[in-house]
Amino acid sequence: MIRGVTASPVTVLAGGVGGARFLQGVIDVVPPDRVVVIGNVGDDVEPHGLHVSPDLDTVLYTLTGWIDETQGWGVRGDTDRALERARELGADAWFWLGDLDIGLHLARTEALRRGEPLSAVTARLAERLGLPLRLIPATDDRLRTMIDTPDGEIEFQTYYVRHHHADRVTGIRFDGAELARPAPGVIEALRDAAAIVVAPSNPLISIAPILAVPDVRMLLASRSAPCVAVSPIVGGRALRGPAADMLESLGHEASPAGVAAIYAGLIDVLVIDERDADLAERVEAHGIRPVVADTIMRDAASRERLARAALDAAGAIA
Amino acid sequence: MIRGVTASPVTVLAGGVGGARFLQGVIDVVPPDRVVVIGNVGDDVEPHGLHVSPDLDTVLYTLTGWIDETQGWGVRGDTDRALERARELGADAWFWLGDLDIGLHLARTEALRRGEPLSAVTARLAERLGLPLRLIPATDDRLRTMIDTPDGEIEFQTYYVRHHHADRVTGIRFDGAELARPAPGVIEALRDAAAIVVAPSNPLISIAPILAVPDVRMLLASRSAPCVAVSPIVGGRALRGPAADMLESLGHEASPAGVAAIYAGLIDVLVIDERDADLAERVEAHGIRPVVADTIMRDAASRERLARAALDAAGAIA
Repeated sequence: MIRGVTASPVTVLAGGVGGARFLQGVIDVVPPDRVVVIGNVGDDVEPHGLHVSPDLDTVLYTLTGWIDETQGWGVRGDTDRALERARELGADAWFWLGDLDIGLHLARTEALRRGEPLSAVTARLAERLGLPLRLIPATDDRLRTMIDTPDGEIEFQTYYVRHHHADRVTGIRFDGAELARPAPGVIEALRDAAAIVVAPSNPLISIAPILAVPDVRMLLASRSAPCVAVSPIVGGRALRGPAADMLESLGHEASPAGVAAIYAGLIDVLVIDERDADLAERVEAHGIRPVVADTIMRDAASRERLARAALDAAGAIA
Repeated sequence: MIRGVTASPVTVLAGGVGGARFLQGVIDVVPPDRVVVIGNVGDDVEPHGLHVSPDLDTVLYTLTGWIDETQGWGVRGDTDRALERARELGADAWFWLGDLDIGLHLARTEALRRGEPLSAVTARLAERLGLPLRLIPATDDRLRTMIDTPDGEIEFQTYYVRHHHADRVTGIRFDGAELARPAPGVIEALRDAAAIVVAPSNPLISIAPILAVPDVRMLLASRSAPCVAVSPIVGGRALRGPAADMLESLGHEASPAGVAAIYAGLIDVLVIDERDADLAERVEAHGIRPVVADTIMRDAASRERLARAALDAAGAIA
């Protein structure tokens, strides 16, 4: 199945729900121990003093079977005794936290407060939960996605969860990015990769915070491995979340062509959906080879097909 | 029942379990809305980033019926889903936190992180839980009890919970005390009190951190109201906790006479147990009037009797 004898990693840049579901397909196509995920930490948040890494957690929970499939986040069947109590006691608890989920945040927060880097904590949580692949946060340094709106700049989760991503987005800034260094393992995962894949995550708020780490962007721009992205925009719409509105309000086109413009210079191939096949030439105009596929992840089979299309385009599978 | 027409408060300095049980007796003797409790914050701790105020919480839970009577702390019937999960994920979770209890800590931590003072948070939690009396932390400033041991100085809860108070105590220091100011309401509660009562709490780790706030000690030394303390040492032993060993290892006598020596100049009366009646003269030698009573709090009736003895000695009841 795997081309050659190299154990070079297949490195995936991934955000939350879409990225995690895509990864389920990836590990059906390449051995999980060959997969390294560079995860987004721009949407990390500290509700009530707990350090929550929503995108890392979604990858952790999805790939270990703990995920609440309906929501796409949180732990299946979790209770909310602590949060309900906090609310009864007057807390403005707008960020949902289940009891088991709080357990994970307690473990992470304690370790971070002891001075352990996020990447080390993440590796331990991954090992304890039985994550089959390697998950590395893009950086151990503080990097936060800030959303500019007509009413001023707000933290990402305030925009996304508290305001239900209803604000018009007039700008995005990655606070701390200039000084952020890649977490241990990130440089090797990009430099030694057999293939690099950008998951079908929101380019502006899931992938851009990863690329905002200067060394990550530099390594991707000077990559030797092929880099394939999967468009999260299909038929002018995002399959989940506010990507389409956000692209438009920031002057991009809400289409695979708009995605291609954003990733120009960083990727070789863009997998676009069949219904966007007419945009192939416009993708090509950005120096990116378009690959047309069914990109809708309905079930395990379609996730695997999409992963196979992306990895095949990257030459990572025979 | 109440002497005079004044609404001057009965002000009680209290620590955790013993203090809270004594307060149950106090509100059977004087109307709860006349009672102001100045609570200990020296044993506050931040496990996993959550701000826990164990002594304040024990008063909150005990006086609102939420307390786990068997343990003397925590919420009756609480589950520990979050903490168990944290442990499964490798957290060194030595400080027990139930799920409902975590809810309270989430609410407190969130408010403190917003910049709200601990006294304001405590007042809101008290109101939501239906606390019948007024509970004020001694200070809103950071004050932490540090325990010196042959192996070095450790935080109070490390000594008390993690090490099961097994270390020999060679010194006690109240970090931050020099600069700590009384929380809003504390000065009035001491200055305008009809009576001041020091609950049967550990003098060295429950009451001393309150007295370590310079203005509190000064106000108590220059009090106009009578001040009555109840000895937590009976027959040479503490009824709960490490008070007796601690008194001895710090060169005090583990007896009401030792307690009298510590409180000399700050109290007018010491309520001592019947079985310590022979020590009355030695208490008197410190300029403190001994009052002999049954000080064992077995049940509601004995708590009320003890409170009545203390308040009667203070002239706070007819």
